Amino acid sequence: MKTVAYLGPQNTNTHFAAKKKFGAGYGYLHAPTVEEVFQLVEREKVDFGVVPIENSLEGAVTHTLDRFVDFRNSPVNIYGEIDLPIEHFLIMQRDTLKEKIRIIYSHPQALAQCKQWLDKNYSRATPRETLSTAEAVEKLLTKQSIWELNEQAAIGRRELAVQHKLKAIALPIDSDNRTRFLIMSLRSAKRGRKNKTSIMFALKDKPGALYDALTPFKKYGINLTKIESRPSRRKAWEYVFFIDLQGHRLDSSVAKAIAALKKGVTWLKVLGSYHV
Amino acid sequence: MKTVAYLGPQNTNTHFAAKKKFGAGYGYLHAPTVEEVFQLVEREKVDFGVVPIENSLEGAVTHTLDRFVDFRNSPVNIYGEIDLPIEHFLIMQRDTLKEKIRIIYSHPQALAQCKQWLDKNYSRATPRETLSTAEAVEKLLTKQSIWELNEQAAIGRRELAVQHKLKAIALPIDSDNRTRFLIMSLRSAKRGRKNKTSIMFALKDKPGALYDALTPFKKYGINLTKIESRPSRRKAWEYVFFIDLQGHRLDSSVAKAIAALKKGVTWLKVLGSYHV
Repeated sequence: MKTVAYLGPQNTNTHFAAKKKFGAGYGYLHAPTVEEVFQLVEREKVDFGVVPIENSLEGAVTHTLDRFVDFRNSPVNIYGEIDLPIEHFLIMQRDTLKEKIRIIYSHPQALAQCKQWLDKNYSRATPRETLSTAEAVEKLLTKQSIWELNEQAAIGRRELAVQHKLKAIALPIDSDNRTRFLIMSLRSAKRGRKNKTSIMFALKDKPGALYDALTPFKKYGINLTKIESRPSRRKAWEYVFFIDLQGHRLDSSVAKAIAALKKGVTWLKVLGSYHV
Repeated sequence: MKTVAYLGPQNTNTHFAAKKKFGAGYGYLHAPTVEEVFQLVEREKVDFGVVPIENSLEGAVTHTLDRFVDFRNSPVNIYGEIDLPIEHFLIMQRDTLKEKIRIIYSHPQALAQCKQWLDKNYSRATPRETLSTAEAVEKLLTKQSIWELNEQAAIGRRELAVQHKLKAIALPIDSDNRTRFLIMSLRSAKRGRKNKTSIMFALKDKPGALYDALTPFKKYGINLTKIESRPSRRKAWEYVFFIDLQGHRLDSSVAKAIAALKKGVTWLKVLGSYHV
């Protein structure tokens, strides 16, 4: 049986994304950090690793990008991607009355995304930040008086409520909230009909360096779908760039553009080509 | 007396940056969120607001960038910047012995930056994440037995230890750790000898859009010191770009480049020109 490691604990968005992609025929293993997901793949303990890379509202998952920056010689490559809609549920004890809720726990991002709706509908409740939505739901399970418990709620995926036998009410948060996940593997993906290639590189320290770096893509008619920068973590205010482009690294135009880019940068790594 | 609002509580890095820039002749006011710092400036409650924008290891402060994205018609502009070295101290009760420490509290970024050193020197201590370094230090002040208190430490600026009369030991973290802060104001900065201009814009949805956007800067010989992208928060996988460039918006080459760029993008805003 093939195995998939994901950023845990269970019932996180990453777990859900992994199950959506791989389904029932795989073994699943949760790891506490992005770093440990990468290590499980690198040490061949699992076949695939799933980590979040970007949310449509909150932007890049910097832990994941920085893992690429810090371990640029890692043999792991991007095998595929998963795009998952994010849903928020208001979770509480079964006998909690909505109008009694005084405290609402969740991850800062979830609280931020639900803020307008909470202000309108739960103006008397105080938001309290937790390190994950899983931790928010655990707050509802800690030993305290029923009276206190019934004044509390958490925001998270419905699966968290199901797991702990709690009540879940869908929040009508009308935002285009999606998260993109990467599948990491030691093996390379098969070339599909439509492909995407992810690269990272460091620019030379000279005026116009970014413009010059983008010139080969213009020349060979390659569309860039994403550009992101992260600190190099070697010198202050020095950056590593991440680019996603349409096409496979074996496509002749992509291969030519990358070869041309390579000449103009300090270093470059192809993180993977994968079917979209 | 002129007043400065900063992202609080007291003795945060932002407080320290504000005092470094403005000194003793100003009144200081702390605000709990980046949003509230902006509002205090917009409502003319203060003359200046100071917010973090970027750390050399952890990258952009997305709250601040997203405030620009979400309120693109705000009258506030960037008046200046402050670059502050970040120092980490291990903070504990005065009678705590280093070898007894079992729990170390701090903000996840501080824990991450100190991880290697902690693993080497405090391998028996468990790191515990808090929402700020100020909250980490407060953990050492909560009611509990002396026995428990003496097994705990926090990581933060030395000022936090001084404030609470705790002991502080410098951590020899050998990384180029700096944070850049922006000064926000309703007034514009005077043109200095060396200036920087910050702009933001949204690209048209067509191949090569970013390359075309950078072309005017190449043409007019303007050096870009920084490029960053953030989700538009209006549509999934649509971005707003932030660019810092060398020169003042009144310099003829900068004015021409921005005018040319404006024709090729959906919208563009000059966030400010300021002395560096």
